[in-house]
Amino acid sequence: MKAYRRRPPAASKIVRLYGRHAVLAALANPERALLRLHATPEALALLPVLPKGLAVTSAGAADLGRFVPDDAPHQGLVLEAEPLEDTHIEDVLGIAGNGPLIVLDQVTDPHNVGAILRSAAAFGAVGIITQDRHTPPETGALARAASGALELLPWARVVNLARALSQIGEAGFWRVGLEGDAPATLAQVLGTSRIALVLGAEGEGMRPNTVAHCDAMARLPIAPVMDSLNVSNAAAVALYAVASR
Amino acid sequence: MKAYRRRPPAASKIVRLYGRHAVLAALANPERALLRLHATPEALALLPVLPKGLAVTSAGAADLGRFVPDDAPHQGLVLEAEPLEDTHIEDVLGIAGNGPLIVLDQVTDPHNVGAILRSAAAFGAVGIITQDRHTPPETGALARAASGALELLPWARVVNLARALSQIGEAGFWRVGLEGDAPATLAQVLGTSRIALVLGAEGEGMRPNTVAHCDAMARLPIAPVMDSLNVSNAAAVALYAVASR
Repeated sequence: MKAYRRRPPAASKIVRLYGRHAVLAALANPERALLRLHATPEALALLPVLPKGLAVTSAGAADLGRFVPDDAPHQGLVLEAEPLEDTHIEDVLGIAGNGPLIVLDQVTDPHNVGAILRSAAAFGAVGIITQDRHTPPETGALARAASGALELLPWARVVNLARALSQIGEAGFWRVGLEGDAPATLAQVLGTSRIALVLGAEGEGMRPNTVAHCDAMARLPIAPVMDSLNVSNAAAVALYAVASR
Repeated sequence: MKAYRRRPPAASKIVRLYGRHAVLAALANPERALLRLHATPEALALLPVLPKGLAVTSAGAADLGRFVPDDAPHQGLVLEAEPLEDTHIEDVLGIAGNGPLIVLDQVTDPHNVGAILRSAAAFGAVGIITQDRHTPPETGALARAASGALELLPWARVVNLARALSQIGEAGFWRVGLEGDAPATLAQVLGTSRIALVLGAEGEGMRPNTVAHCDAMARLPIAPVMDSLNVSNAAAVALYAVASR
C-alpha cells in the first residue's frame, strides 16, 4: 500500500530522487512513501498514470536544477519521498531461488554502490548486504546510479558485517571474497552452491575479519599492468560469471 | 623521451592529473610532457624516484583541493601536464596480438569513459576508438577514473565513426555492437575472430549508422526487470566475456 503523509516529515528525512528511471521505479514501488513530484510539463506528459493523491508541482528545468546536486541530469523529474524502510538480513536470506547475494565491505562511493545495485538486479541477485556505518545513505545520486534498482533489490544494512557473513554462511551461501592478489581465479572457486560475492573498498580492499569470514578468495583474471578494476565493474563481471557458470 | 617545456603552454592546454594511480602512471609515461608536480610532503615521501628536472611544489592538502573539482580525492598529488599527443587509428589497428578493441559511440560521461579505459587495459584490449566530437576531453576526472590506463591504452579520436568502423572491419576485427534489445546474446555471436566491441550512450544507444557498420548485434543476458547496465559495467562484462571465450 502506498502511504501518503498529510504533514511532511522532517527535512532530513526527505530523499530527492531524480532522473527518469529512478523516479518511475519509485512511483511504481508500493513500499515507497511519496511526498511530492516536481516535473516539467514535458516530462509530466511522458509519465504513465500517476499514483492517486500524489501532489504534483509543475516547474521549469532550471528550478528543478536547484533541487539536485550540481549538474545532475534530472531529466525534468524530481520526486520528494521518504527513505525506504529498513530491510532485515533474515528477510533477504529467506528469499527463495538460486540468485547470488552481494556483500559490500565499506564501499562508500554512492555512484559505485548505485551501479552495483543496478548490476545486481540485472543479474538476478536476491539482495545486497552492507555495513550500516560505512555505507552511503540513500540519496538521489545513489538512486540515479541504481537506475530503478534501489526500489527493486532488498538491501539490508547490518551493524556487524562479520556476524552477517556467519549468518550468510549458515543460510547455505558459498562466500567468495574478491581480492586482486588471490591465487585462484573466480571461475576456479565458483563451484555449484549458491554464491555470496564479497567486495571491499577500492584501495584498502576488505578488512581482515571480513576475509576471515569468506569460504574462498578469488581474483578476476586481469592483466598485471592494472592493479584492479573499478569496484562496480568488478561486481558486474563477477555477477556475470556467476550467472553464466 | 620525456619532454620538458621551458615556457608553460596556454592555460587551456594544461591537464591537472590527480590521485595516486593516475599521477604515478603519468610520471612513468615517456610520452607525457610534464609541467609541475604539486604534492603534500607525505605523498611525496611515498613516491618512487621522480623524473629528472621535474619541478615540484610542496603544498598542503587544502591547497591541492583548490586545483581539483569539488571533493575530488587527490590523495596529496596534483600533476600539471600537457594533454597526450593524438593517436591515429592506423596505429591502434596495427598493434599485433589478439586483444579486443573498444569503440564508443557518443559516450560522454568522463567517469564512465575513464572506467572503460581501466577495464579495457585490465582485460588486454589493444586500444579504444571514439568519435572526437562527442567524447569527453582528457581531464583529471577522466584520468582518475582510468586509474593509470589513460597512459597505457592507445586512444584514437576520429572524425567519422562509421568510416573508422569500416577500417576496423577491413583490419580483420569482428564488430559486435551491444544493444539491450538484440535477439542474440553476446556469447552466441562471439565466434573466434578478433573482436571490436561497440557501445553506445546510455539511453540513446548507438546511432543507426553505427549499428549499420557492425557485423553482429548482441545483448548481455540480463533480467527483463532492468533495462540496461551502466555503460562501463556493460563494457567490463563484455571484455571479460571476450577474454574468457
